Amino acid sequence: MSSSESVLFLLILGLMLLLARGLGELFRYFKQPMVIGEILAGILLGPTVFGMLAPDIYNHLFNSSAAISSALSGLAMLGVVLLLIVSGLEVDLGVLIRQSKVAGLTSFTGIIFTFIAGFALSYLFPSFLGLPPEKSPLIFSLFIGTSLSITALPVVAKILMDLKLFKSEIGFTVIAAAMLNDITGWIIFSILITQISDSGHGFSPQTTVGLMFAFLLVTLVFGRKFFNRILPAIQKKFSFPGSVLNFIFIVGLAGAAFTEYIGIHAIFGAFIVGIAIGDSAHLKEETREIIQQFVTNIFAPLFFVSIGLKVNFFLNFDFFLTLTLVVVATAAKVTGSALGARAAGMGKLESKAVGFGMNAHGAMEIILGLLALEYGLITERTFVALVIMAIITSVISGPLMSVYAGKIKKLRTLKGLLTPSSIYITTASSKEEIIRELCTKAAAAYRLDEIALRVAVFAREETSSTGLVNGLALPHARITAKEPLLMCAVSKTGIDFDSLDGKPSHIFFLLITPQSMPELQLQLLSEIAKPFSDDELAVRVRENPAGFYPLISSRI
Amino acid sequence: MSSSESVLFLLILGLMLLLARGLGELFRYFKQPMVIGEILAGILLGPTVFGMLAPDIYNHLFNSSAAISSALSGLAMLGVVLLLIVSGLEVDLGVLIRQSKVAGLTSFTGIIFTFIAGFALSYLFPSFLGLPPEKSPLIFSLFIGTSLSITALPVVAKILMDLKLFKSEIGFTVIAAAMLNDITGWIIFSILITQISDSGHGFSPQTTVGLMFAFLLVTLVFGRKFFNRILPAIQKKFSFPGSVLNFIFIVGLAGAAFTEYIGIHAIFGAFIVGIAIGDSAHLKEETREIIQQFVTNIFAPLFFVSIGLKVNFFLNFDFFLTLTLVVVATAAKVTGSALGARAAGMGKLESKAVGFGMNAHGAMEIILGLLALEYGLITERTFVALVIMAIITSVISGPLMSVYAGKIKKLRTLKGLLTPSSIYITTASSKEEIIRELCTKAAAAYRLDEIALRVAVFAREETSSTGLVNGLALPHARITAKEPLLMCAVSKTGIDFDSLDGKPSHIFFLLITPQSMPELQLQLLSEIAKPFSDDELAVRVRENPAGFYPLISSRI
Repeated sequence: MSSSESVLFLLILGLMLLLARGLGELFRYFKQPMVIGEILAGILLGPTVFGMLAPDIYNHLFNSSAAISSALSGLAMLGVVLLLIVSGLEVDLGVLIRQSKVAGLTSFTGIIFTFIAGFALSYLFPSFLGLPPEKSPLIFSLFIGTSLSITALPVVAKILMDLKLFKSEIGFTVIAAAMLNDITGWIIFSILITQISDSGHGFSPQTTVGLMFAFLLVTLVFGRKFFNRILPAIQKKFSFPGSVLNFIFIVGLAGAAFTEYIGIHAIFGAFIVGIAIGDSAHLKEETREIIQQFVTNIFAPLFFVSIGLKVNFFLNFDFFLTLTLVVVATAAKVTGSALGARAAGMGKLESKAVGFGMNAHGAMEIILGLLALEYGLITERTFVALVIMAIITSVISGPLMSVYAGKIKKLRTLKGLLTPSSIYITTASSKEEIIRELCTKAAAAYRLDEIALRVAVFAREETSSTGLVNGLALPHARITAKEPLLMCAVSKTGIDFDSLDGKPSHIFFLLITPQSMPELQLQLLSEIAKPFSDDELAVRVRENPAGFYPLISSRI
Repeated sequence: MSSSESVLFLLILGLMLLLARGLGELFRYFKQPMVIGEILAGILLGPTVFGMLAPDIYNHLFNSSAAISSALSGLAMLGVVLLLIVSGLEVDLGVLIRQSKVAGLTSFTGIIFTFIAGFALSYLFPSFLGLPPEKSPLIFSLFIGTSLSITALPVVAKILMDLKLFKSEIGFTVIAAAMLNDITGWIIFSILITQISDSGHGFSPQTTVGLMFAFLLVTLVFGRKFFNRILPAIQKKFSFPGSVLNFIFIVGLAGAAFTEYIGIHAIFGAFIVGIAIGDSAHLKEETREIIQQFVTNIFAPLFFVSIGLKVNFFLNFDFFLTLTLVVVATAAKVTGSALGARAAGMGKLESKAVGFGMNAHGAMEIILGLLALEYGLITERTFVALVIMAIITSVISGPLMSVYAGKIKKLRTLKGLLTPSSIYITTASSKEEIIRELCTKAAAAYRLDEIALRVAVFAREETSSTGLVNGLALPHARITAKEPLLMCAVSKTGIDFDSLDGKPSHIFFLLITPQSMPELQLQLLSEIAKPFSDDELAVRVRENPAGFYPLISSRI
């Protein structure tokens, strides 16, 4: 590089980082993924905006030297390889195995739905989707299908952390399913690549796929064990954390070079090596932190900005194509994933939250799209639509998950549980009769097994009566349910419920909470008991049973 | 980059890091700077060894693609810029100011001596030193002079840490003087560059030098204050540590681009920006750690390995030139720096230790040499000699410092202080007389002010007698000296010293310790008193005063 090339190179790097950070922080301020800001920085700096406004300066900066272009593309290449190593490090095989049933189903149905939707769409309307001339509609449609099935693990993880759902059941499911999606998507994509690309290394597609699975097996089974055994030795004998940083890089680069050599893209190898190393319990937090911070803050922004430098997002923008992709991808992914989660036994609301979580396509989609663009599998028009689809699905994923997470949270409060429809006026006259009646109504409303419910409530009742004071009776039980449920009966005449103060009971709450949330039972019981510090409610229920709901809801 | 280029690029990066780490760890095992191993890795991987043994594979790997070469040189460029930012972050302006007198003198005389030696050598024997054809002998000689005056801060810091001298007076002096050397060397070199290079940006040498000083002033005065003020805001408002990492990079790259633009090399700007940011107390340890680890373990090795890739070290090796450079650089640097340190008031041994510490030329020398090579200022032969000189001076610096540090340490033990020449037979007959005599002898032997010494010892004696038991008297005092001193008199007849057991004293130790080492006094006093648990020594001294040294030295 000459001196003026060096000046330009340094200036460009500085500019890229500055814009990426600036817009990234702006998006972070609005609780959006920073990566969107980084991509926008590239669009601003690239042919779309800067190249349009000041073509001379733009060309001088970016197109005047082959050496600079090569250096920038080398850096971007290294950046995306490192980013995939880091993404791999984030994959937790333990979580994946623990959540295998629900994550497997969620991921599987999600992929199937989006894959079919994407495939059908592009197979039926190839020119609308942008099939490049002389390319196979089959491979193209397979790619669009695969591409729509991607879920971006890093974006999803970030959203879950922001929503404080990362360590919840929803969080574990989404994370594990996203990891499965990523791995599956990459494998399918890698196989697709072998069908279209001429890697120049002389492998037949069958050999490449065979070698890929051999690589997967060797790395994830033997490599994983080997890394886990060798890491403590490296940390002990060599300088720390330097030698571990180098080890991860060297093995990651070797894996990347190998997969690129056999005809699959380098980042597949980097990702798999990252998973294998990241699984080791010996990999220290400090090492992860250094790699993660440096890669996500320096290399990743350089890569994401470089995307915007490649394509004119304005000229290649197709509103209807983008809209179609967003709608189809979202509909198929949310429905598919939610159905899978529900089939695996998750609650209704959780399943929906999981579905929206899985819909964040994020950076992974964009990387896949970029590769497809480089392989000539898609045109710039489709690429731009995919990028914008990835951005939009990532942006809406958080707020929509948060809506459902909010609903779930509300369901666990007395205010959320007590609705007019959960209160009825009873004519029952005995303790046994009112308990049976409450159980029947509750089982019907929440679709539970009535017998099991009744057994649990009567068993609890036998240990001591739940007839409290001031007309309140509070039969309750804990069963293996997903969410709490509440049923309330009011009686004008009153029923003998063996209450503590010997008076007849007028208001009966049946509270059923999940076995898994013992503290929730205590909390809800005390919330219900609070308004009964005197017999006002019982007196007023005797006068006007139908007026109980407004009465109680103003007091909780 | 095509797929096969990507494979090669990733393989080369992996190989570079693997060899660099392997040899680096080997050197570390032998307590040598890792950077030497990294440079050797480049020599092995480059034309010198690999290129000789397997020229076909070598050429396929390194010379088959312009894109790969550009990407590698871009990475190496970024690597050295980042390395200089980190080096700048390590410069502690506080230490520099606190140690300004001694460090200033040490650095100044060191630079003057080596500069004159290097300049004279190359001005007198230009062809032996390798003056390139049609180049100015004056500029060439100025460069060799400058180059020989360099001290490599990172290497020196590492050596001092290894020797556990980092926080000692020697350590502070060497570090501060090395920082001054670096800054001075870079300024001189930058001015030299303006004389020879045609930067293509149309500045006259005078303008460039003027802009350079303006940049220095603005960055180190206003920039430093600005960074210190803005850092807490960045850490508070933006994501941490990502935004700070980016901030350092962006400002560093901007500084680098600016200095490159005005006709000085980019790394000068990076270095100065590093100093200005690193001076802020708000820069957190975590941020420093992430940058430092990543740059020294990933970017720096890539840069150092790339040096070996540029030049054939075997074909360009000139034994006599290398030997001459090593001898002249070492002789001039050690003498000059030691004289400076001595003149600033350091002890004899410390000054020598400082001198050898300042002689580590390390990475800075190599970077300077590489730039000179790129500017055509020196030939490959001189470059190779400079690199090897830098390696040798760095390797010998540690062991030689350690010899002097060992001597200094030994001087602080009773064994080191008690020599045959520090013992004499006295004929004094009174307490006052023997103290005066001891002070006279001690002052003569250690070149101290006799009056001051006597005043201090008598003052101590007045608080309570130091005549102990079993014939031992231990007059002592603390003065503002650099090192402890010991003088011992034995008396056949014995002297009344107001001893604790009332018996006459036969053995008199005068112990003078520095004010700054209160714990040393206690330690040495108790060491001296130990062999006097009975009156055996006093009895044997009465029999044979001349035999005291073998007697006492076998008991301590």
